[in-house]
Amino acid sequence: MPSGYSHTQRVEFRDTDAAGIAHFSVFFVWMEQAEHAALRDLGIRVLPTPEAAGESVITWPRVSAHCDYRSPAFFEDKLQVDVRITKLGEKSVTYGFLFHAGERMVAEGSLTTVCCLRSPDGELASTAIPPALRQTLERLC
Amino acid sequence: MPSGYSHTQRVEFRDTDAAGIAHFSVFFVWMEQAEHAALRDLGIRVLPTPEAAGESVITWPRVSAHCDYRSPAFFEDKLQVDVRITKLGEKSVTYGFLFHAGERMVAEGSLTTVCCLRSPDGELASTAIPPALRQTLERLC
Amino acid sequence: MPSGYSHTQRVEFRDTDAAGIAHFSVFFVWMEQAEHAALRDLGIRVLPTPEAAGESVITWPRVSAHCDYRSPAFFEDKLQVDVRITKLGEKSVTYGFLFHAGERMVAEGSLTTVCCLRSPDGELASTAIPPALRQTLERLC
Amino acid sequence: MPSGYSHTQRVEFRDTDAAGIAHFSVFFVWMEQAEHAALRDLGIRVLPTPEAAGESVITWPRVSAHCDYRSPAFFEDKLQVDVRITKLGEKSVTYGFLFHAGERMVAEGSLTTVCCLRSPDGELASTAIPPALRQTLERLC
Repeated sequence: MPSGYSHTQRVEFRDTDAAGIAHFSVFFVWMEQAEHAALRDLGIRVLPTPEAAGESVITWPRVSAHCDYRSPAFFEDKLQVDVRITKLGEKSVTYGFLFHAGERMVAEGSLTTVCCLRSPDGELASTAIPPALRQTLERLC
Repeated sequence: MPSGYSHTQRVEFRDTDAAGIAHFSVFFVWMEQAEHAALRDLGIRVLPTPEAAGESVITWPRVSAHCDYRSPAFFEDKLQVDVRITKLGEKSVTYGFLFHAGERMVAEGSLTTVCCLRSPDGELASTAIPPALRQTLERLC
Repeated sequence: MPSGYSHTQRVEFRDTDAAGIAHFSVFFVWMEQAEHAALRDLGIRVLPTPEAAGESVITWPRVSAHCDYRSPAFFEDKLQVDVRITKLGEKSVTYGFLFHAGERMVAEGSLTTVCCLRSPDGELASTAIPPALRQTLERLC
Repeated sequence: MPSGYSHTQRVEFRDTDAAGIAHFSVFFVWMEQAEHAALRDLGIRVLPTPEAAGESVITWPRVSAHCDYRSPAFFEDKLQVDVRITKLGEKSVTYGFLFHAGERMVAEGSLTTVCCLRSPDGELASTAIPPALRQTLERLC
């Protein structure tokens, strides 16, 4: 993974369950946190600015999420989460994620989101990713 | 607790942590779920209707939350959560909660919320609880 | 879905996020809750009994999880979650889940788990699903 | 707060709810994360080592938790969480927490935990805090 963004994620106690390991659902929260960190790093706002009230704004609803689990993550592990864009479509973005605890592979996941315009009355319509935004996102490919 | 509302709460696996018991923070989520169930039971809408967009609406931000833990709650326990209003102020409501697993006392908590008007631009101002709403809430006292 | 198990899941306030809808990660928690409800309904213990301490016990680590999102779930929606086993392997089980809010399809997901023996020292080894358990699980196929 | 430990906590998207702010229950998770960061900083292990299996170990069940909310926390806020021990009893520790977003006070909370010995069969008994541990904890007072 030569390009992309690398995020560090501590396994906190609330992330664990009675099996003594991080709960499988938490990896999806971690994927989003790594995605948001990567977008912030590129200078992309994750949520519309409050000043955008009353205008149509871009939002990114998730259409698909997936994770394969290779080995458990334990309380206090510091996971390295590598993010990159594996598919940059006309209207959609698929992110791929690799989770490692040191050398040990922990999990591999993906999130697919669709570029949508939300009108002030809350209606969503998918739309082509604006060219300037696409150009910035290409740095994660 | 002769009056009030009684709610059943299953301890789900995600509610547990690596100590093998329900995480202490989850009791606050359960308090809110029991509060909302009690309000629904009284016919009180928890959130403003979508039709209320553009009008000032009543919201109930929390100002204080507290819990004392007596004994652990385990995966699959069916907890009985008893809710009642312990203080009905001019502008605020304090709910008290008792958690039992069968005869065993598990926890005792409270939430204090303030009646606020939120204007369409998002400003919050505390306000007296409207008389009709107060009359309904008295059934939980 | 003629066979299988049907579970009801209320969307609670903590399940929502600042986009005003249920967070995508919560569907994985709901899948597990529906799976566990289905297993309880069949009389299958989800976790080993405490009396099993010191013996090898069966556990079901997740190896894969997936969800496709069709439409949003909102606070207070009562979702119908239909569970069935879509693949009953020698050592693994794949559950399929359908989420509906009334007639509206909300999401479709899956979880794959592997039958493992955990020895008293914590070591995991995959193992064939015991015949009696397999026979019970077939009722969810 | 001249002594104590200062922790930084990003408000992540999953921490928010449909009211557009961090959910009140999340502050309790953040208190624990700040407590654990402070203990790690002192070189104190939060959980017993795996090698301690078969021995009595020290654990810290929560007996009480409290939070007062002053102003909302929003997505992407970087909160400063100041932790100190406000009461170091013979068998118990009370931590106090202050949450700020820049200059703005967000919340003030506390956690009380009791020093317990857990025997290999899972029984808990409260016990005096061992002198060496007490001496280290005094650095947070």
